[in-house]
Amino acid sequence: MTEVLAHIDYDVAHPSGHRIVESRVPHLSVLDLAATRGDGVFETLSTAHGLPQALEAHLERFGRSAATLDLPHPDAGVWRAAVQDVARRVHADAPDAEGWVKIVLSRGIEGGIAPTGWAYGAIAPDHRALRESGIRIVLLDRGYRHDVVSTSPWLLAGAKTLSYAVNRAALREAARRGADDAVFVSSDGYLLEGAVSNLLLRFGDELVTPRTDQAILAGTTQGDLYRYAASRGLTADYRLLTPADLASADAAWLVSSVRHAAPVRAVDGVQRAIDAELTRGMNEFLRARTE
Amino acid sequence: MTEVLAHIDYDVAHPSGHRIVESRVPHLSVLDLAATRGDGVFETLSTAHGLPQALEAHLERFGRSAATLDLPHPDAGVWRAAVQDVARRVHADAPDAEGWVKIVLSRGIEGGIAPTGWAYGAIAPDHRALRESGIRIVLLDRGYRHDVVSTSPWLLAGAKTLSYAVNRAALREAARRGADDAVFVSSDGYLLEGAVSNLLLRFGDELVTPRTDQAILAGTTQGDLYRYAASRGLTADYRLLTPADLASADAAWLVSSVRHAAPVRAVDGVQRAIDAELTRGMNEFLRARTE
Repeated sequence: MTEVLAHIDYDVAHPSGHRIVESRVPHLSVLDLAATRGDGVFETLSTAHGLPQALEAHLERFGRSAATLDLPHPDAGVWRAAVQDVARRVHADAPDAEGWVKIVLSRGIEGGIAPTGWAYGAIAPDHRALRESGIRIVLLDRGYRHDVVSTSPWLLAGAKTLSYAVNRAALREAARRGADDAVFVSSDGYLLEGAVSNLLLRFGDELVTPRTDQAILAGTTQGDLYRYAASRGLTADYRLLTPADLASADAAWLVSSVRHAAPVRAVDGVQRAIDAELTRGMNEFLRARTE
Repeated sequence: MTEVLAHIDYDVAHPSGHRIVESRVPHLSVLDLAATRGDGVFETLSTAHGLPQALEAHLERFGRSAATLDLPHPDAGVWRAAVQDVARRVHADAPDAEGWVKIVLSRGIEGGIAPTGWAYGAIAPDHRALRESGIRIVLLDRGYRHDVVSTSPWLLAGAKTLSYAVNRAALREAARRGADDAVFVSSDGYLLEGAVSNLLLRFGDELVTPRTDQAILAGTTQGDLYRYAASRGLTADYRLLTPADLASADAAWLVSSVRHAAPVRAVDGVQRAIDAELTRGMNEFLRARTE
């Protein structure tokens, strides 16, 4: 497997640059707060043609997540250069493959003075069959009201933190129920997001995704797909949505950086129609991006 | 600082023993799910006289947390021996100091076949002044209903996971409000637990702690204090409690493994009485434990 690891050098709270390091040896202390408290933030980007995709949107969200956790601001110049370097190296021998880069910023060693940062890249699993055949999802209670981000910011809803044990547990619960993925619903009944993706619905000529003030992540892939929608003459909106809206939608997708647009073919065991043509167009558009 | 690190050797899902390793060099891969997803469980034990305290209660809870996360069961024999060895070494040159040992079990390298385990021990900060003078707390919404553990087990409430970013954010929010610690309240108004401790109230001759079926951790220190309470002629109970109960209690504490019993001297900026005599008795009891 082609994999590349870049260590971000920190001078106290300020990143000064990156170094490519050996990826298969340990780099983290057992006292790093990434490992002991899930106390940090991350982004996962897709790469193609040796380039990271939606890089600026990911770096912006990375900065917003860091601010929510009171972490030092991740200087975009240093992180951009690291991601570009890692992507270029991952694709050096595989220019036509799909790849991914994960960037992580943790609060560093407990009691220390500098954060820990790294960028790790590799060739991606082949998601092409799944983009055609679709996925089965289950709806799971997220436990929070849809408005919790405004009432209780310390819950960090809407920040992409390393504390993802619940997201992983949701995926195991989905597998137990014979499904491929999970979509969270707020405790007051609104559709939120996938465990590691955003939900997108089509009603006639309109694409709709759940409003992003509901303690969820603003999707970078969904953002790009809204530009694509405009080019196809589709309108696009953000709304409060319920499971009944999902049931009545003409088509549904979970969209994310590496898997791209995965059409939903079943919800809680009930089969539903796939929009194969629009799905294909979305994924060709996402695959072709060079920025 | 005296610190000791033991690596738990895993043969696929089964721990075979431990090795003392150099603590100041990196041991974790950036692909370890502890670091990338907070996907693991932990316990923190106090140590005294070269021995871990409440070891069996911690190992039991460690096993329950692992089961909640579908992790391999942590064989108690191997983990017990590792904790005892680390505690003995930490106290070799400091027999009268207070110490602590943290044990961590993660799901291991993403895509791998074995979990990652370690036990890290060190001399503890001196909490004696704080046990006398007390702490100021704030009440913060946890976002979840008190019964969420029974309706939505994938939220992992009640398991001690590495995904503690919210607990850390709650402590920063407490500091912003001029307090030392935070106590979570359920979205339907019940007192839950501290960010890293349990809440204990005294009403006359009765000690009461929030019912542990409310998506909170069953406290090992609280459990030991209930044995102490019996020796003092106090009764002890588990109940649903509200912020009004906290306001009307004769005394309140946050109790945890390393800080022991910290008397609460203010709640949301309102001063309240400390029970200095009972606090002293509790902490002498906790300090003297040899099992």
